[in-house]
Amino acid sequence: MTPSRDLVARVAAGAVPAIGRMISRAEAGSPEARPALAEIYRRAGRAHVVGLTGVPGSGKSTLVATLTAHLRKAGQKVGVVAIDPSSPYSGGAILGDRIRMADHVCDAGVYIRSMATRGAMGGMARAALDAVDILDVAGFDTVIIETVGVGQDEVEIARASHTTVVVSAPGLGDEIQAIKAGILEIADIHVVSKCDRSDANRTLTDLKQMLTLGTLTAGRTEWRVPVIGLSAYKGEGFETLMTAIGNHRRVAFETEAGARRRAAIARFRLEKTAETLLIERFTRGAAPVAGPLAERLSTRDGDPYGLATELLEQALAPHASGAST
Amino acid sequence: MTPSRDLVARVAAGAVPAIGRMISRAEAGSPEARPALAEIYRRAGRAHVVGLTGVPGSGKSTLVATLTAHLRKAGQKVGVVAIDPSSPYSGGAILGDRIRMADHVCDAGVYIRSMATRGAMGGMARAALDAVDILDVAGFDTVIIETVGVGQDEVEIARASHTTVVVSAPGLGDEIQAIKAGILEIADIHVVSKCDRSDANRTLTDLKQMLTLGTLTAGRTEWRVPVIGLSAYKGEGFETLMTAIGNHRRVAFETEAGARRRAAIARFRLEKTAETLLIERFTRGAAPVAGPLAERLSTRDGDPYGLATELLEQALAPHASGAST
Repeated sequence: MTPSRDLVARVAAGAVPAIGRMISRAEAGSPEARPALAEIYRRAGRAHVVGLTGVPGSGKSTLVATLTAHLRKAGQKVGVVAIDPSSPYSGGAILGDRIRMADHVCDAGVYIRSMATRGAMGGMARAALDAVDILDVAGFDTVIIETVGVGQDEVEIARASHTTVVVSAPGLGDEIQAIKAGILEIADIHVVSKCDRSDANRTLTDLKQMLTLGTLTAGRTEWRVPVIGLSAYKGEGFETLMTAIGNHRRVAFETEAGARRRAAIARFRLEKTAETLLIERFTRGAAPVAGPLAERLSTRDGDPYGLATELLEQALAPHASGAST
Repeated sequence: MTPSRDLVARVAAGAVPAIGRMISRAEAGSPEARPALAEIYRRAGRAHVVGLTGVPGSGKSTLVATLTAHLRKAGQKVGVVAIDPSSPYSGGAILGDRIRMADHVCDAGVYIRSMATRGAMGGMARAALDAVDILDVAGFDTVIIETVGVGQDEVEIARASHTTVVVSAPGLGDEIQAIKAGILEIADIHVVSKCDRSDANRTLTDLKQMLTLGTLTAGRTEWRVPVIGLSAYKGEGFETLMTAIGNHRRVAFETEAGARRRAAIARFRLEKTAETLLIERFTRGAAPVAGPLAERLSTRDGDPYGLATELLEQALAPHASGAST
């Protein structure tokens, strides 16, 4: 394993292989990587982190690709951390989404990384935010976190950014719309994709109306959430989106509300990291003792709460977890 | 609050208000409910638990409604625990899906409950499995757990059943198909919905081929996973599905492989319940001490791992958590 100090220095110099290796270590979550990730964190804080989410079929990936192209044209280096659904068995991240990013793969000013969602229990958020810091330290000006807007973890990650963009598309089915309702409230900027379609106006109007009624703003007053119609097909709306992202960047970095947001992100991150360490300690301690307790539960010689309490006591005992007091 | 002993007795007598109240207490997760839930667990174990999952748009809700009707016709009482996506802010479960169940709402042999997905960290699985036990004790012969097949938690819950049914629909978009790949492997029974459509044959053939190649069986040999085409529109395929569910019920309850599966479910449940208790203890202990540490993280006076370790030490100290040693 490359010594951590060297690796961090090479990440900071923008060396692509070092960036990839550092993110892999963050993703694996091994304790050996932590000193380097701690050093990364201390050096980070310069990049504008944009969370981008939307339900399946909303045109999220096309938007990320086009947004990346516009940010590049404006002279920025762009990092993308894409949280992908993954199989509970096979563990492979699905790369289909990335195909649309093919235009950017030969551009040294763009770094794209897909991360799997497996290994939950706070681990995904922790790993994704570590990856964002790595790209930040490596000199990327804007780092986009792209998540599918389903599942509480995915939504929380999209919120843990300076600027959250939520993409909606016209004419999705009932069930998709129902899922969508859960993510509309987290938007700093609403985007309606596929605005070349005739039913897009309805989606635009609905969103604007919800914003006017105050049902989506969650009490925020420092920023008027815009609703921006886009057409990747016609190439329309992207300049407006770029302006909105730039304006919100100023809110994030230069206002009291932005400072509160960054404090909330730090709190979220502290808790997610603590949960990861906690589950790790518990899992290590539980492995040798869970079998007999599960057997008792299986035969109903005990109940889940009583046996789980026993498991906790045994797993967190200093001699079991290897922790010193 | 109704004394727990009375409530459990009334649940066991099948009293609908008692069932509702007991599930609400399980969902709220308050420690006061645990003695009653422990008692419920000890009495449970009779019902056939069927996990049913599929991506948005796969026709899951229609299938649950039709399956419920067929089970009723066969003389069974049917409970449904539906895990719904929910807003990270407003906390309301979305009831759109339930509309299709309207035919059953006046039938005392059917009990339908939507549960929100918020309050993650193992809490959703714990609450859902408690609800299954409550319906089991209340005398429901089959309890269906319906989840949207996106997100690791949702997939895990669908697996924590005696018989897992995965629904696929023909002709969904790329991104949906990619998500779907993650849930195909957990199926004991594959259902292809909307088989009145001309492109359904392709979906049936694809699934059968994957099964023949052994990519979806995860080494299981005790049960040949069937692929069943359904048409709710034409009313076709449901008898075949009923037979398959009945056959798999025998595998679940009468074979060595079924016993292993039930042991694995007990282990999952023990761990999820322990995680819930652990996070609860951590959250209680962390609340008074997290602020200053998050502040230090926000100003980069420290890093996530170091500060999270401090937070854990402080939160789990006996005096902080209120736990005795």
